[in-house]
Amino acid sequence: MSRLFMFEKPLGMRDTLPELYEKKHHIRTLLADSIKRWGYQFIETPTLEYYETVGTASAIPDQQLFKLLDKDGHTLVLRPEMTAPIARVAASKLLEEDLPLRLAYSANVFRAQQREGGRPAEFEQIGVECMNDETISSDGEVISLLVSSLKQAGLQQFQVSIGHIRFTEELFLQILGTEERANTLRRFLFEKNYVGYREHVQLLSLSSIDKQRLLQFLELRGGEEVIGKALDIIENEQGKQAILELKELADLINDYGVQDKVKFDLTLVSHMSYYSGVLFEVYAGNVGFPIGNGGRYSLIEKFGKSASATGFALQLNRLLEAISEPDPKAVSECIFFSPERRKEAIQLAQNKQEQGQRIVLQDISGVKNLDAFSKRFSNTIYLIGRSPNNE
Amino acid sequence: MSRLFMFEKPLGMRDTLPELYEKKHHIRTLLADSIKRWGYQFIETPTLEYYETVGTASAIPDQQLFKLLDKDGHTLVLRPEMTAPIARVAASKLLEEDLPLRLAYSANVFRAQQREGGRPAEFEQIGVECMNDETISSDGEVISLLVSSLKQAGLQQFQVSIGHIRFTEELFLQILGTEERANTLRRFLFEKNYVGYREHVQLLSLSSIDKQRLLQFLELRGGEEVIGKALDIIENEQGKQAILELKELADLINDYGVQDKVKFDLTLVSHMSYYSGVLFEVYAGNVGFPIGNGGRYSLIEKFGKSASATGFALQLNRLLEAISEPDPKAVSECIFFSPERRKEAIQLAQNKQEQGQRIVLQDISGVKNLDAFSKRFSNTIYLIGRSPNNE
Repeated sequence: MSRLFMFEKPLGMRDTLPELYEKKHHIRTLLADSIKRWGYQFIETPTLEYYETVGTASAIPDQQLFKLLDKDGHTLVLRPEMTAPIARVAASKLLEEDLPLRLAYSANVFRAQQREGGRPAEFEQIGVECMNDETISSDGEVISLLVSSLKQAGLQQFQVSIGHIRFTEELFLQILGTEERANTLRRFLFEKNYVGYREHVQLLSLSSIDKQRLLQFLELRGGEEVIGKALDIIENEQGKQAILELKELADLINDYGVQDKVKFDLTLVSHMSYYSGVLFEVYAGNVGFPIGNGGRYSLIEKFGKSASATGFALQLNRLLEAISEPDPKAVSECIFFSPERRKEAIQLAQNKQEQGQRIVLQDISGVKNLDAFSKRFSNTIYLIGRSPNNE
Repeated sequence: MSRLFMFEKPLGMRDTLPELYEKKHHIRTLLADSIKRWGYQFIETPTLEYYETVGTASAIPDQQLFKLLDKDGHTLVLRPEMTAPIARVAASKLLEEDLPLRLAYSANVFRAQQREGGRPAEFEQIGVECMNDETISSDGEVISLLVSSLKQAGLQQFQVSIGHIRFTEELFLQILGTEERANTLRRFLFEKNYVGYREHVQLLSLSSIDKQRLLQFLELRGGEEVIGKALDIIENEQGKQAILELKELADLINDYGVQDKVKFDLTLVSHMSYYSGVLFEVYAGNVGFPIGNGGRYSLIEKFGKSASATGFALQLNRLLEAISEPDPKAVSECIFFSPERRKEAIQLAQNKQEQGQRIVLQDISGVKNLDAFSKRFSNTIYLIGRSPNNE
């Protein structure tokens, strides 16, 4: 092994050392406890899936997939997200009875990085999928669970922005006429480049009224009042229907009592092509990227079942960045022993461990630098040499 | 997507559905709690590593590695075990002060299957590594922690068999003279093919005394008395030293009070080439493969640090097979609501959830088959139509 390679990890791959691990485990447990209390059941799926199955269904760009070949020449992928694998399991095993289904996961997903840009190539997502229930109640449930579990996890400053993909689609198609022109404008929204959006609208050959509507559309961000304004801008029935869904969603969110963390943002679009209704993003504190997102989708149809679903995925590493918490308690106590008092030391350690304490039991002859090692503990006990009881 | 492929998973890959997930999570938590109380700190390493770094260090045969190429043409592997990645992290970041180091992990590892043989290609290992402490005390600690955590996890019938790789090496080399002849005999031991071993010994051109010693060696399996018998068979100093280490280990195990679960088996060998001292295997109940194994090794030297270590790895799926436990509690209660009583239903659900109950809150209009859905819960509550309080 060359010296250069000895300690290297592949691009975007990271180690998680003890302190961060403890914090991660703690936050993951709090989130999972919330999710379970709402009746969601956790499942696991394989890290590797067939490209033809999950890879093509996943809406993550091909160049971001880690691919390999199996012995039979089939292409495998490291799962790039969890919604497609969960849809595969649900469609093949769990939706036989055609009933609502509440599933959850906490799993690492993989996205190949083109160059070192600080983004991880492997990261943990925690999420839920509420499947085969088409009511807006289930969208409200998922968003309220998102807010509730983030609060349980100790996150204080965050905001869920809710939009509706069908509203945006209908408005753009109605004014712009073609999918292509709509896509160009949508790209500005996706990049949150509102200056570019405005400039582009001015260049379009449209009536000044239509231009005005496209600019007014940018203002559809804020509290519940946004919903009324949106109804004024949209003219066709499908678009109005989308807004009525948002109105019902707002009522649900009020009933759940989580309205303090919710805003409406009708300019919200996604790079995930499978969304079909309400969609949302969560931003927290100073974190530059959304810590989570979700919405309603119809991905399950790709697996031969006609069922819609709604869900969210949280990116655990970004959530950790947003949660400022005191460092978790480290190992606190070390008992050093020599052979004469070994048995006594073991019994003392066992007593303390049974009370839930974390105790290192250390043969003193195994430590080269006792001073440095002792500094790692808040307390040290020495049971060395002949026992005072036997003197 | 072809119909054939729609639900397929790659060879040896499995889904974990809710009930097994809960059991797995429960057992993992019990093991991890034990491990933490003994002062071990959990870390995480990436799923993908460089072949040149971890792949070549890992002692898992090349044809069992999942390999892929990164953008720069470097070969990556899905980690086939955790000891090599942990050694990489320890050598690069955590052993700078040259002190004892206690690390732990719970992680999925990957081994490509040649054909469907019931073996998983991805499975979870939970383990510890006690590094940079050369005392037998640390071997005793690791074995006692193994026994203690298995008991905590609720496993009743199991047995740890302990051997010493240096004893076997010295005895074979002393009698057989060449590494090649020793390897042939060792293969019989690894396959636990004692009949084949005996037949092979009879064919060797050796004195009858030496043949007798090789056959007596097979009897070195049982309680502490094995240690005395082993001393009688071995003649050279290094081999005797190995047995004296086992004697000290037996004393330690008695002091820890875990001798009821421990046997000695000097015929124990491993396919892991990095073991250098005490080594062991755990068998449980009716499970046909060891549920875990471990021992002392010097792998860290491959990463440029001169440090020996000892540790164990448990295979969680095999442990689960061995633990007969009642099925974990499923979701117990469902509250059905219609819009008129939605707020009331939400508040009832929240009250119950705050007490730790698992409550599904279901808009009744989202369920196509109410009877079938209700059967999934031990209790159902209907808050439907106008509230009786308002009548």
